[in-house]
Amino acid sequence: MFKKILRNLEEIIPDQKTHVSGGETRFVPPPPPSENDDDAENMWGWGFEDSQFRVTDEGHVVLSGDRYSISGVEMPNLLPWMSDVLRSELGPEHSVEPPRDPEVPEVTDAPELYAAIEEHFADEQWSLDDTERLQHGHGQTQEEIYAINFGDGFSRVPDIVVYPGDHDEVEKLVELADRFDAVVIPYGGGTSVTEALRCREDEERPIISVDMSRMNRIRWIDPVNRMACIEAGAVGRHIEDQLGNFGFTTGHEPDSLEFSTIGGWVATHASGMKKNKYGNIEDIVVDMKVVTPQGTIEKKTSVPRESTGIDPMLWMFGSEGNLGIVTEVVVNLHEVPDCQRFGSVLFPSLEEGFGFMYELAQSGCVPASVRLMDNTQFHFGQALKPEKERLEALKSGLETFYITRLKGFDPEEMVAATLLFEGRQKQVELEEETVYDIAERHGGVPTGAENGRRGYDLTFGIAYIRDLVFRQHMVAESFETTVSWSQALQLIENVKRRTHREHRRRGLPGRPFITGRVTQVYDSGVCIYFYLGFYTRDVDEPDQVFHDYEAAIRQEILDSGGSLSHHHGIGKLREDFMSEVLSEAGLKSKERLKSALDPDNIFGATNQNVGRGIEQ
Amino acid sequence: MFKKILRNLEEIIPDQKTHVSGGETRFVPPPPPSENDDDAENMWGWGFEDSQFRVTDEGHVVLSGDRYSISGVEMPNLLPWMSDVLRSELGPEHSVEPPRDPEVPEVTDAPELYAAIEEHFADEQWSLDDTERLQHGHGQTQEEIYAINFGDGFSRVPDIVVYPGDHDEVEKLVELADRFDAVVIPYGGGTSVTEALRCREDEERPIISVDMSRMNRIRWIDPVNRMACIEAGAVGRHIEDQLGNFGFTTGHEPDSLEFSTIGGWVATHASGMKKNKYGNIEDIVVDMKVVTPQGTIEKKTSVPRESTGIDPMLWMFGSEGNLGIVTEVVVNLHEVPDCQRFGSVLFPSLEEGFGFMYELAQSGCVPASVRLMDNTQFHFGQALKPEKERLEALKSGLETFYITRLKGFDPEEMVAATLLFEGRQKQVELEEETVYDIAERHGGVPTGAENGRRGYDLTFGIAYIRDLVFRQHMVAESFETTVSWSQALQLIENVKRRTHREHRRRGLPGRPFITGRVTQVYDSGVCIYFYLGFYTRDVDEPDQVFHDYEAAIRQEILDSGGSLSHHHGIGKLREDFMSEVLSEAGLKSKERLKSALDPDNIFGATNQNVGRGIEQ
Repeated sequence: MFKKILRNLEEIIPDQKTHVSGGETRFVPPPPPSENDDDAENMWGWGFEDSQFRVTDEGHVVLSGDRYSISGVEMPNLLPWMSDVLRSELGPEHSVEPPRDPEVPEVTDAPELYAAIEEHFADEQWSLDDTERLQHGHGQTQEEIYAINFGDGFSRVPDIVVYPGDHDEVEKLVELADRFDAVVIPYGGGTSVTEALRCREDEERPIISVDMSRMNRIRWIDPVNRMACIEAGAVGRHIEDQLGNFGFTTGHEPDSLEFSTIGGWVATHASGMKKNKYGNIEDIVVDMKVVTPQGTIEKKTSVPRESTGIDPMLWMFGSEGNLGIVTEVVVNLHEVPDCQRFGSVLFPSLEEGFGFMYELAQSGCVPASVRLMDNTQFHFGQALKPEKERLEALKSGLETFYITRLKGFDPEEMVAATLLFEGRQKQVELEEETVYDIAERHGGVPTGAENGRRGYDLTFGIAYIRDLVFRQHMVAESFETTVSWSQALQLIENVKRRTHREHRRRGLPGRPFITGRVTQVYDSGVCIYFYLGFYTRDVDEPDQVFHDYEAAIRQEILDSGGSLSHHHGIGKLREDFMSEVLSEAGLKSKERLKSALDPDNIFGATNQNVGRGIEQ
Repeated sequence: MFKKILRNLEEIIPDQKTHVSGGETRFVPPPPPSENDDDAENMWGWGFEDSQFRVTDEGHVVLSGDRYSISGVEMPNLLPWMSDVLRSELGPEHSVEPPRDPEVPEVTDAPELYAAIEEHFADEQWSLDDTERLQHGHGQTQEEIYAINFGDGFSRVPDIVVYPGDHDEVEKLVELADRFDAVVIPYGGGTSVTEALRCREDEERPIISVDMSRMNRIRWIDPVNRMACIEAGAVGRHIEDQLGNFGFTTGHEPDSLEFSTIGGWVATHASGMKKNKYGNIEDIVVDMKVVTPQGTIEKKTSVPRESTGIDPMLWMFGSEGNLGIVTEVVVNLHEVPDCQRFGSVLFPSLEEGFGFMYELAQSGCVPASVRLMDNTQFHFGQALKPEKERLEALKSGLETFYITRLKGFDPEEMVAATLLFEGRQKQVELEEETVYDIAERHGGVPTGAENGRRGYDLTFGIAYIRDLVFRQHMVAESFETTVSWSQALQLIENVKRRTHREHRRRGLPGRPFITGRVTQVYDSGVCIYFYLGFYTRDVDEPDQVFHDYEAAIRQEILDSGGSLSHHHGIGKLREDFMSEVLSEAGLKSKERLKSALDPDNIFGATNQNVGRGIEQ
């Protein structure tokens, strides 16, 4: 039977198969679709160009295009609800158009380097163009997006963008950087939210941004051994599409799935929404290949799990471009699940919701994803509903009656959990039974699959909202932490209290918007994801105000027992807090590792402050 | 409800509670039981002194003491069966008594160092005694145990053994080693099977063995956040006993559980039998504290999961004493499961057994443990049965009839799987249903819980057998690998063929004993655990013959796509193979990390050859 499974491979492997070395069970899938114009990305903010929030003359909010469940749907309640929360005037009449006129610093003088790049790379593989350089000099933090939309841009951006086509070209590029005393900063999907891509003003050497987008192929799929080797520049949506054609998934689903790359997931130590079933990135990765100043670090065989001593592969998780460029990653594959179901539950209070999450986490029977939204976020979700749904809800009335009257839920206290079950049917059924049993013990009322699905769908569409709020004189950003179960409720309370205190202290207009949701559960605690927003009309340098404001809240998080980050990382945004989370010897050891592997600081992104001590 | 859970803590926490800093949910459990004489360990081989295999005058084998399920049971079939397999004469009349007269090299001259140790440590915390030094200079490899039983011992052993009582004393000791140019080698349970504890003959500096056995306390248990902080010298059996008193388990169960330490698990990158449910050591560890030449690396908060950049904690997995001493480890806890069930299944052939394992691994519903024994190991298990059971089996006859006649199983082909289910009852029931459904599709016949339990019980008792086989003019050892599913059957066949070929080539008497079992399943492959044994009467230097023989088989494993180790590690035993598994840049990077963190090679165990290049 087992050998038969292997022989049956012929049926699994498509016609266009090309066996590759390393095992007769591997085949090469077709290349990813070449991008068409419809997939053009928005250089001024998040996501695709065709998907942008706009405010109609009636003050209804609409997401353009047709990519998302909320695309093209008029949402009349959003701005009124936000106005109320912020105690500020929002609406079409208050809209401001971003000038979008950032300056781009001149290219650093380094003719020999550029000539060498020209010699080794095709014309379409490198660029000194200002727009491309600007785009490669930032990620998606609030401060960065503000700088290009409303500010002066950046005092330093990469000097040249190079697009290597394979591993050997990355090696060549690192060699050139070494020879011509240049800096190399790897660039994946550009979705960093830690200023990891930002260049330091004091970097005097030429900076090469290594855009990995051409390295977007799946090098092989091994359907028998459930592995795939993927080039580091492949983005999540293409990876999942291509694997899906053969019935497989990695199961890794960060909120940035559409744009972020597998190399970026390794470098930032990423987490996926469905980690309860598939694990976080460190659980999914079997093997990798990394170009470093010492040469290419790779193993000779990709095997399930090893104990072969000190493992340089582990150093790459969280390396944030400081140590090398990941060029290929071997991941575990899973069958696309038989069964996928959504669910949702309302709880009378955040405390009851936490009780549910805690008991569920300890049950050993946790669905692929479970999230818990606080009361503000619950209402936010309601405000995103189109008029039609609101009317239907009014019409039926029954659900509302049941929840707020019969069960006595306080609309200002109740919270919502969304659930995603994935796997074989019987496992899903057992998880559902477990979840709803536990929910009942905590006063939870199931509110159906559709509300759950809606919650998950919103994840991708809602990411575009920052560009909307910018135009309404607001700044907004998310940040996250991990914290033990027993400290979690207090941390949320502290963060909310601090948010209001800092708002008052800074004399900002109206009231702040602060909401949190639990996005991941672990044995020992949770990941909490916060959104912070506030009104900034007539506020000087709102980006700087935001920066300081967020730092104050981060300090509150640390003081409340939270971590510096669960999955966003450190970059430059949180580097000043490193000494509050790691001992001096730990910091020194990181610096020593860096100096030992990259003594000339070629990988000079200097994230986490690593490499800052190296004399140029 | 959630706050109530926290308040209910009073019921969970015992009377002798002492709250510790870092959270009101932590308490300090009572210290581990002090060792009594019954727990004295055998300095000449594996395990407890009271548990030793002996051969009766009738040639029956008996394990002394009463610790294990097989203790005190006469096994009449073992020696006859082994004689037959080995085509060699075994029995009481051929027994040889090991002379056990190893030499112990003199203490290296370093009076100032010893005086400084005497000054800072109590008298019972250090020793220059020959026996203690000898014991601390080796682990449990075949070659090492042979050397002390039949050989001349070792040309180099530690000069002094020091027993620090807490983290600060470890720091002090490392400081003294630095000041007096000495080498420090951490010593946990002494169960290394990679010569990681062996001292190199050419080490001229004084060697301090740091025995961690006094650091055996659980510093705190946090029943709410499901964590415990455990000193690195605590051994598995005490950890599980103490946690079990409060209803918790780590779920980590290596075969060496009784003797190995949690610090050792981290340093060797250990794997536990029940990893399908609880994970391997890297999944279980939340946080750790490590003394290095750069100072103490530690985090300020123990949180579930973080993305806080390059993480020095990850360097410690597989560090094998080369980088520092782990002093404390924070682990995840789980409730002792409601339900624990065993199971077993017979399959007509290894191939069918593999088909079962493969399909089970992909089902997403894998029990805590599943193992598959090849035909030889199945018969080995039968040969370990006492006379009574053999008679009963003969008497009933029915089972044998059903399996070998009705089902047409060939006794020389069939293989056995053992199963351990753990968790909540419904999850266990679903796993059982899944397992037996899949087994049926592969021609499997369930053979009951008792056979399964017996299989797991044997793990601990059988570990003593090497000392028996030594006395019967045999050498025997286990080794392991990971390999992809599609290469696994071929690897087993290659290893068996190579074993016979090498046996003939070396002109060894009789025939070799070679058997394998799958001990772990992963998405992409399996861990295979082999036992090799052969008869060595009138063979010169059987330990050296074994060493070369095993190396040849290891080469065969690598050539067949297997890893260098799944959980045993590298140590010195497999260091020569490192360049076959990791690229040159990878090896160089390891060496650079070492030189950067420990430039004077204080942690001079030089496992994996790391640090060998540093000039003293």
